[in-house]
This record gives sequence, C-alpha cells and structure tokens, in this order.
Amino acid sequence: MAEPTAKTEHYVGVDLGGTKILAGVFDDKLNCLARTKMSTKAERGPEEVIERIARCVRDAVDEFDLDLKQVRGVGLGAPGAVDAEAGRVIIAPNLQWQDVPLKKLLEKQLGGVPVAVENDCNSATLGIFEKELQCKPRHMIGVFIGTGVGGGIILDGKLYSGFNGTAGEVGHMVIAVGGPKCNCGNRGCFEAVASRTAIFRSLHAAVKDGQKTVLTEMLGPDLNDLRSGDLRKALRKGDKLVEKVIEDAAEYTGIAVANLINIFNPEIVVLGGGVIDALGDEMMAVIVETAQDYALSGTSKGIQIVASKEGDDAGIIGAAVLARRAAK
Amino acid sequence: MAEPTAKTEHYVGVDLGGTKILAGVFDDKLNCLARTKMSTKAERGPEEVIERIARCVRDAVDEFDLDLKQVRGVGLGAPGAVDAEAGRVIIAPNLQWQDVPLKKLLEKQLGGVPVAVENDCNSATLGIFEKELQCKPRHMIGVFIGTGVGGGIILDGKLYSGFNGTAGEVGHMVIAVGGPKCNCGNRGCFEAVASRTAIFRSLHAAVKDGQKTVLTEMLGPDLNDLRSGDLRKALRKGDKLVEKVIEDAAEYTGIAVANLINIFNPEIVVLGGGVIDALGDEMMAVIVETAQDYALSGTSKGIQIVASKEGDDAGIIGAAVLARRAAK
Repeated sequence: MAEPTAKTEHYVGVDLGGTKILAGVFDDKLNCLARTKMSTKAERGPEEVIERIARCVRDAVDEFDLDLKQVRGVGLGAPGAVDAEAGRVIIAPNLQWQDVPLKKLLEKQLGGVPVAVENDCNSATLGIFEKELQCKPRHMIGVFIGTGVGGGIILDGKLYSGFNGTAGEVGHMVIAVGGPKCNCGNRGCFEAVASRTAIFRSLHAAVKDGQKTVLTEMLGPDLNDLRSGDLRKALRKGDKLVEKVIEDAAEYTGIAVANLINIFNPEIVVLGGGVIDALGDEMMAVIVETAQDYALSGTSKGIQIVASKEGDDAGIIGAAVLARRAAK
Repeated sequence: MAEPTAKTEHYVGVDLGGTKILAGVFDDKLNCLARTKMSTKAERGPEEVIERIARCVRDAVDEFDLDLKQVRGVGLGAPGAVDAEAGRVIIAPNLQWQDVPLKKLLEKQLGGVPVAVENDCNSATLGIFEKELQCKPRHMIGVFIGTGVGGGIILDGKLYSGFNGTAGEVGHMVIAVGGPKCNCGNRGCFEAVASRTAIFRSLHAAVKDGQKTVLTEMLGPDLNDLRSGDLRKALRKGDKLVEKVIEDAAEYTGIAVANLINIFNPEIVVLGGGVIDALGDEMMAVIVETAQDYALSGTSKGIQIVASKEGDDAGIIGAAVLARRAAK
C-alpha cells in the first residue's frame, strides 16, 4: 500500500471539537487518504484529551499503513481563542480549557512530529480557500454555523488573525440589539439568533407555547434528541413552524453576511458548519437574497455567497494545510 | 516667505463634502501651512463643483505664497464609493454624482498637477494613522460619525479597500434589526441609530411628543437650525432629554465598535467626525465602556478606543498623505 505514495509527503489534519475529534491523513495535494473519529471526553481534562488526539492521529496514520515517522507534520484546529505562534489555546469554553500549551504537549505525545495549532474556524476557512477555491479569491470570509457561529478571514490571500490572534469572531457581532441572550453574556449576537442552539431554542419555546409541528410526532412532546436532520425531514413534510424558524435564521444570517460585505467588500463569502451542511439547500436562497438586499447598493457587484462543498471535512483539510504550511 | 521651505516638498489635501470643500497646503512632514474653505454647491453639477475644488486648491496655494507648479501633488477624499486606481467617483449620494472621472477632470483644471482620489473616510483614516499615530499600530479601524457614519480600515499598516474598493462601510452594519429607517433603505444600520441625523431625528420626535428640553428655549419649538454644538450647550445645562438621546447614540456606537473589535481584533479604534468632535468629551466614556462590555471576553486586551485629536483636519491631512504616497 505504501509504495505508490512513497515519494509523496503526508500530513495529518485534526479537527478538535467539544464532542468529537476528527483526524485525517492527507497527501501533498490535500487528498484525504484515511480518517478517524473519536469522542473528545472534555470532562476528563486537557491531558487526557491530548492523549486521545494523539491516539486519533496514530490510528489515522496506521489506517493508511503509514508510520508516524513518515508524517511531515500535524495541524490542529481548536474551538477557541488560539495563540497560533506560541501554539497555545488561550481559552476554549466548550472544552473548559484555559491557557493550554497544546503544541508542546501534543508534540511530546507524538514523539516530536511538528504540530501547528489554529482556531478551528480559521483552519476551516483556510481549508476551503486552498482546496475548494484553489487560492483564487484575494479576499474571502468564511462563516460557520453550528452549535455556535464562528468565522475566518482571508485577506490578500492570507489568513488575517488580528492583534491578539482572535479576529473573525463574527458570531458575536450584535445584529439585534436587545434580542435573545447569547452564551457570551450579551444579547442579540448573530450566534444568538441563527445558530443551531438558537433554532432549537425557538422550536422548544414554540412547542411549549402550544404551536403545532410534526417534530412532536417524531420525537415526543419534549423534542428529545432533536437534530438538524430532523428539521430537514420536517421541512420536507411541509411543517409550517419549522419553515418559519429556519427562514428567520436564514434572514438573520443574510443580514450578518451583508454586514460582512459592507465591512470587508470581499470577493466571496463561504458558509459552512453543521446547520448549513444539513439545511443549506433550504436556507441558501433566503440567505443570498437577504444579503443582497442589505448590502449597500452597488458595492456587492460580483461578490459570491455560497455554501461550502467540503462539509464536515473543511476542518481537517484546513488543519492539513496548517501542517503543510508549517513544514515549508 | 517661500525661502525657509524652498527645499521642502508641498502637497495639497482636499476634503470634498456635501456642503463644503476644505483644502490645505502641507509640507512633507504633514504640517498644515495654509487652508481654505468654500461651499460645495453640489446642486450646480459635477463640472462646476470640480471648478470650485480647483479654485479652493489655488487659493490655498496662493495663501502660502506658492505657485501651483511648486506643488508635487493633490489628494482628495470624496464622500462616496471611489475607484481609487482609476480616480473615479463611482457613486456619491450627497453630491448626486454617478461615475465622475474626478482625477482626470481635476488634473485638467489644475494644469496637470497629479491628483489622487480616495473615499473620504479612507482618507481621514490614513491621515490619523500617519500623522496622529505615526504609523505605529499594525491594524487600525477609523469610525467617523457625522451626518452619516463611515469607516476606514488599516490592516498590516496598509489601507484595506476590498474587492470593489468599497470596504469600510461600517455605517451600514445592521445592529438593530427592524430599527429606525436608514437613508440606504434598510432598517437598524449603525448610521440610523447613532449619526447626527439619527440624534436630531430622536430629538425632533421627542419634542413633537411633548417632552421638555432647553433646546426649545434656545431654538424655538421647531428646533430650527439645530447643531451639534447646541447639544453640548444643552448637556452643560443638565438637559435630561439631550442627555438620554446622546447616551443612546453613544451606547449604539459602543456596540458597533465592539462588533468591529470582535471581527477585526485591531490594535486601535479611532473615532472622529462632527459628532465626536462636538460631543466626544460627553460620549467617549459610554462608548468605551459599552464596547468593552460587548467585546468578547479576553479578546479586547490591550485594544485602544480613542477619539481623534485631529478633528476636522483628519480629512485634509489624509488627502495630503494620498498625494505624498502617489508622488513617491
């Protein structure tokens, strides 16, 4: 098996999430050769999580019949504020991490293979930029809608990370002053009105309020174990409540995208993340229409607004890009 | 008079506004040596306005006992979307201009002196960056609050203008979905809740609604000829209505600044424009406090939020910077 790729170089990209760890082995052209998945078990603390990341990396490498020594580098996207230069996670609320020297600890676990660390949305943006867009746009904004909402910024073909390395927190752009409470403590953030959490909160409130939806037939009166996929099923059954809630989220997303267009005047805005992966077909038309409506007249000419085709893989691809960049 | 500066180089910076044209003669160190002011008379059409700009430039140059031939270049900030490379004003609603080849026409009027054109807020941002901040911050955002609200973006020490050259339209970032109507046609833009227009609108509505304010004693029941300076006077008299309206505008501004910090993570945000020049002392504390409150925890560390000291001069200084850059 190793023969045909003996001359190529291999990188491992890791997407570290609050609930799962994804790892993928990539060749120099960013083709994914093998991948593994493991639960994060964040409650066990950073050391054990880092051991699990290392195990996930080793498993992926072994899956493709390689040895760690044949891997030129490992990249990792982490869910929080990251000091990429120092390889430290400054703060990651979903993991309950604070100031973790991830690069150093993971390199130790991996016997010295070099590790590069970035914020997960920055990493996913980089993955989409290099693989899906072939580095063609000069300025690109990535917007990722899942449990939360995050973003990544490519300007002049380079990842822009700002003064403290935390640029791109588009999910905490306030668009509805005085609106629903956000996890960050403020009200009316983009994340508080358009994330999966926001959508589920609206649905729970509506059901409690006595509104009808097929979701209660599917999952019971408490909407136990509600997932994005259930919403897609409900939409296909013509469920009016789900339709309305999803349309609202799409409109808010369109307004947020227009804000980013007015601010950055980028060449392209790419949307991704769990909500877009599951409901992109249903949401994108409203998102694009609203964004064009709210973007300042004449300034959005030629600007594309699209859903990423990479889905869940954007994170590991981007992490592999990090590893490849660090090795060169 | 010309002797001591005979060896230095001179530039003229022009700030073209909807109601007035300002021109300043600058030396190579951006010291302002002379300045002139003229009304714009936009209603007379682009050709006549451009003649007036040329007259304003000649007058300023003559004021300092120079000849146009001794001027290395003219820079100009225009209120609208500008294609800086082509030297064209794409659209300037306040002037009712559309697609005006300003560089070409003004160079003709000025006998061939090279002219550089930019958006007025980009130009003012550049002026503050080079003169007031001595080019020290890597990333800076300028926010200008006057009749409207505009912005300028310096990233990695360079003016960022985006794909179509229209980046920095921070005034049309929606922060209050469904809020007051904006001149752009949308609702809830930053400009619609914090500009001079928005402040005056709130005051007129409150007076019509029967609320008490010393402004009616000062200006009559219709608040004729209301100016920002009147608001400062009213505040000093302890006027509760004006206090409330200004505090609201400052809070909205703080939220918008926090959005920009969450998105850009810049080193510094500088506020300017007529409202800040007139009411900065009264507004800045609320702006800074609100911005720090809304900026994502931990990410605003070390980020400064200040009012520019250049006041009305930022525009002509920045325009002189444009001219100096173009000449080098």
